[in-house]
Amino acid sequence: MTREISETKTVTACLIVIGNEILSGRTRDANLQFLAENLNALGIRLMEGRIIPDVEDTIIAAVNDARARFDYVFTTGGIGPTHDDITAAAVARAFGRRLIRHPAAEALLLAHYRPEDVTPERMKMADVPEDAVLLDNPVSRAPGFQVDNVFVLPGVPRIMQAMFDLFKHRLAGGAAMLSRSIASYTPEGEIAARLADLQGAYPALEIGSYPFSRDGRHGATIVIRGTDQADIAQAADALRAIIRGLGGEPQDVDL
Amino acid sequence: MTREISETKTVTACLIVIGNEILSGRTRDANLQFLAENLNALGIRLMEGRIIPDVEDTIIAAVNDARARFDYVFTTGGIGPTHDDITAAAVARAFGRRLIRHPAAEALLLAHYRPEDVTPERMKMADVPEDAVLLDNPVSRAPGFQVDNVFVLPGVPRIMQAMFDLFKHRLAGGAAMLSRSIASYTPEGEIAARLADLQGAYPALEIGSYPFSRDGRHGATIVIRGTDQADIAQAADALRAIIRGLGGEPQDVDL
Repeated sequence: MTREISETKTVTACLIVIGNEILSGRTRDANLQFLAENLNALGIRLMEGRIIPDVEDTIIAAVNDARARFDYVFTTGGIGPTHDDITAAAVARAFGRRLIRHPAAEALLLAHYRPEDVTPERMKMADVPEDAVLLDNPVSRAPGFQVDNVFVLPGVPRIMQAMFDLFKHRLAGGAAMLSRSIASYTPEGEIAARLADLQGAYPALEIGSYPFSRDGRHGATIVIRGTDQADIAQAADALRAIIRGLGGEPQDVDL
Repeated sequence: MTREISETKTVTACLIVIGNEILSGRTRDANLQFLAENLNALGIRLMEGRIIPDVEDTIIAAVNDARARFDYVFTTGGIGPTHDDITAAAVARAFGRRLIRHPAAEALLLAHYRPEDVTPERMKMADVPEDAVLLDNPVSRAPGFQVDNVFVLPGVPRIMQAMFDLFKHRLAGGAAMLSRSIASYTPEGEIAARLADLQGAYPALEIGSYPFSRDGRHGATIVIRGTDQADIAQAADALRAIIRGLGGEPQDVDL
């Protein structure tokens, strides 16, 4: 896949987490935060996360919606050997492609398992949509795959992360998103008006405010994000002045 | 709001997590798992989670999509005093209602803050869509609100959870979802075929398989979920027999 992505365009991504175990509360998702941070480092912004059940029509609708709206789509979950692993078949249907047994994936699995451990269910992990590109799995061998802008990955975080590290160089990012966080014990309600002015003065930056309380004291961490290092530094200086003006002590929290 | 929900119907919910800080990886969401577990206990199934940025049009689209598809919709995040807190205004627009200053919310905030701490930004937290019902906040006072089937809650987990506990008795659940989990060191690839048969024999149950590896040994936890206690017990007995038949030792992991 070749994607023409300019230096200045925002490159976007969506993560679709597929799994009843997340929606039942049994398991807490860990893949969204990993992808958010690692895509960010590549200049790709995670714009949406979606957590859906192992239901074919739901997966098809979510994949087709997301691949039309975002530059990259990642799915996690549902590519193992059991009956509830239906992601590959659903993605094939989303693209209107046949599900085929991929010869290289089949060879990988046959080399990995002892002959007596080769079961039809395990070999199902070699089934991918026609013309899909395999994604190497250095941990447990069964590969993920890529179809156009959709990357299909396993749900187990350790395996997903190892796979991501192997293909991430193929993702074309845009301008890297930079950020600076400054905390103080100035409560949100006191700094809010000045913060809105600051946001108004720097429309290209994204200024977020996240309240905290520690030892009974209220404060807020202000996060300034953007692609222009100089703009961010200037806005951070202005923010420190605002905090001092309100009697607070600004603290850089991410140096 | 009165909702007519029968004992046997599946009552569904969607959570919309609003916040750039989740999508940037800065903060790991904790609200989805809490709501999943607590709704489950009320006989309400979380069917989708959606994580979106603090962008008005995106919030409006997500709220309108979700409130049409699910019995209950919960939003978390974006109801504080700062410029990036735009959830109340976005929900008002989603419903085509005016955003009004709610007299009771205003009174709450005026009673909570010292006169010198009353700022226009803090009072913004009293603005809700017309005819919204306030949701008590026992921690930091600023209320959430309900419009029709949409419940608008803060993002800070401790506050969101305290608020949920105060209004949850008003949610009408369906049949409670029960579950049983059985683990063994039988790998997924070996049990998969029998598991598919078991799922076929109990179409009303949801049988999920979640692989694990511990101390270099591979195994899987099988989760059987459904609304009929007797069915679940029967399927669990069958599953234990399957595991023993494959030379494994079934372990009940949630008694």
